[in-house]
Amino acid sequence: MTMPAPTPPFAPFPGPLAAGVAAAYDPPVMEARRWIAGRSFPADRPLLNLSQAAPVDPPPEALRRAIAEAALSEPQAHLYGPVLGLPALREEIAAQWSAAYGGAISPEDVAVTPGCNQAFCALMATIAGPGDAVLLPTPWYFNHKMWLDITGVEARPLPCDGALVPILEEAEARMAGVKAIVLITPNNPTGAEYPAGVVEAFAALARRHGAMLVIDETYRDFDSREGAPHSLFQDPDWRDTVVHLYSFSKAYRLTGHRVGAAIASPARLAQAEKFLDTVTICPSQLGQFAALYGLQHLSGFVAEQRAEILARRAVVEGEFRQALPDWELMGAGAYFAWARHPFAQSSAELARTLVEAQSLLLLPGTMFTPADDPLGAASFRIAFANADGEGLRTMLARLAAFTAEQGARA
Amino acid sequence: MTMPAPTPPFAPFPGPLAAGVAAAYDPPVMEARRWIAGRSFPADRPLLNLSQAAPVDPPPEALRRAIAEAALSEPQAHLYGPVLGLPALREEIAAQWSAAYGGAISPEDVAVTPGCNQAFCALMATIAGPGDAVLLPTPWYFNHKMWLDITGVEARPLPCDGALVPILEEAEARMAGVKAIVLITPNNPTGAEYPAGVVEAFAALARRHGAMLVIDETYRDFDSREGAPHSLFQDPDWRDTVVHLYSFSKAYRLTGHRVGAAIASPARLAQAEKFLDTVTICPSQLGQFAALYGLQHLSGFVAEQRAEILARRAVVEGEFRQALPDWELMGAGAYFAWARHPFAQSSAELARTLVEAQSLLLLPGTMFTPADDPLGAASFRIAFANADGEGLRTMLARLAAFTAEQGARA
Repeated sequence: MTMPAPTPPFAPFPGPLAAGVAAAYDPPVMEARRWIAGRSFPADRPLLNLSQAAPVDPPPEALRRAIAEAALSEPQAHLYGPVLGLPALREEIAAQWSAAYGGAISPEDVAVTPGCNQAFCALMATIAGPGDAVLLPTPWYFNHKMWLDITGVEARPLPCDGALVPILEEAEARMAGVKAIVLITPNNPTGAEYPAGVVEAFAALARRHGAMLVIDETYRDFDSREGAPHSLFQDPDWRDTVVHLYSFSKAYRLTGHRVGAAIASPARLAQAEKFLDTVTICPSQLGQFAALYGLQHLSGFVAEQRAEILARRAVVEGEFRQALPDWELMGAGAYFAWARHPFAQSSAELARTLVEAQSLLLLPGTMFTPADDPLGAASFRIAFANADGEGLRTMLARLAAFTAEQGARA
Repeated sequence: MTMPAPTPPFAPFPGPLAAGVAAAYDPPVMEARRWIAGRSFPADRPLLNLSQAAPVDPPPEALRRAIAEAALSEPQAHLYGPVLGLPALREEIAAQWSAAYGGAISPEDVAVTPGCNQAFCALMATIAGPGDAVLLPTPWYFNHKMWLDITGVEARPLPCDGALVPILEEAEARMAGVKAIVLITPNNPTGAEYPAGVVEAFAALARRHGAMLVIDETYRDFDSREGAPHSLFQDPDWRDTVVHLYSFSKAYRLTGHRVGAAIASPARLAQAEKFLDTVTICPSQLGQFAALYGLQHLSGFVAEQRAEILARRAVVEGEFRQALPDWELMGAGAYFAWARHPFAQSSAELARTLVEAQSLLLLPGTMFTPADDPLGAASFRIAFANADGEGLRTMLARLAAFTAEQGARA
């Protein structure tokens, strides 16, 4: 099951190449970085990079000090730990999640993972294999698609409605061979916050078909709604249907430490443990110390971050229509907005022109959709969280100028 | 491609279960931990745990301070970094490896990975897929076997000679469908240091069959030989055949930070990058700072560690035969010795008796061999690196007492 590499300068490929990785596309974020690498931008129009949703500042000083202190005084911080994570962190997650979701989650239901991406890979490896299918609402998160490609699992696209919420009836019609439905809420890449009723209806659909609902809540700390975003954990039988994923990267700015979490049945975590042991052995111990410190001491900081992100979202939502009357803001939430542009060209092409003409980097919708989905070509993802109000107004102004130029050229 | 879970208490399994992880066995180290969990041992015979080869002490203070300093003053230490690792660390590895192996390795040939296990997984994912085969000399490293099981690749056993060196002619006869030959030298679990000529002959064999030679040199810092252990990198065409793996966990005591490395062609690393981006995004940034500090400042410390490990090995090799005349020391090197016991029972059974009767934990050979390989049942792995001279003499005395008891019982 190998095939030659598709592209020069590596043809012929040196040695055997497995079909799985060969079928997966290159990491989109790296591709976008190449568009700006080595370029210089005008002094009066410096690069505005809204391509990636990641904190650009380090964690607050108290957390940096806690990490440094652990490095100096906790020998365990440098040694192997349990595959499924530090018991104290698993307990803290279980307690805080039980309270937040109004459900019963025990420490045995929790695994700490080396980032949320690996939580997805490890849990998905327990659910589906070659020949199985998994439903991904489109636009999808590209790393989910890439993992399914690498492992020979069919990533079956699931259409969304005009509010970018996946359509239950469309899922119902696509369930043959499906082992899991993946929902991300608040969504990357679209920002959509899925209504509780929608999430619960998808869980019921998964259960009826003997499939799992994998719900990635990486951005839960920035949900605009108060209280639990769904009632899944209030069902005492949640373990036979639900896998929940979380990341410590965003709220606590720990991207470089790689700490995430999965919540699932202990039986499934025992299977995921084989994967995690084999792939990474254990999550970074210092990263886990940091995550625990964050959960125990930084709720105020997280609340401030959330307020700031919601304020940025309000700028985008409040000023988009006036600035860009020919565009459509289809979704906004968490770190992201999803916008439809008015041009005939594909966003894949426009994205590079936008870098050249306006020093503005946005990822084209094509990076988040199947090649034949017209929504991708018609849209951009805007990672608005990485700009303040002034930066967002600059973005709107540059998109307006770009629209005027393109219109004049057409 | 799913199947029910094989064992209670999780039958029926809650939801679909993929065949790959279901086929993989439980992590052996976890299994062995359960044998001692919650037990108490006599005060005059405390537990002697020689089951795992991992540093038990934290890194030297200078390195701990460097990590703490980076946590406080390097914002980048907390943020995402490049998928294939920090450029400065890739450069340092390339320079030091080029010197050590007398070959030309450029920074573009180097990837930093979240541990050496993940280096294996990521590179193997580029080489072999379901339906392909990979040759693993037996006894094998169990995480290699587990990864191949999880990903549906056939782990084809390759017999070793009496010195625990894989037999070239046996490999030659087993090459149908083989995409890679995996060599670990110095070996885990046996301690064998493969002669340069053997390594080079396996590389030639791999090349003749269009397969890769994956050489895992996690324990290279503890090789008893001086100079380059093989000439693979002196061949200007090494990139079409060789993948080299390394770990920063042992020499620098960074197990809890998860830092390893892979050396391969840039074309192959570009494929591995898809896997690494999807699974972990980037290695721990602090761990990379630590590894770079280690390479630049701790060569003296590593030399001392090596001398100490070689001294421990000398105790085992010098005193084994006299203490245990009915046993056979088949191999000793790096952190490990491999010993054949004189009993009719399987090591799987004896290992538990040894914990009860002698407060001594060794992993049975069965954890490192196919079920039908008699060598596994007849042997133990001894992770001698974790005991000093006195501890090793205690081990030999306990094994002698155990042998006398078992003999009396028979």
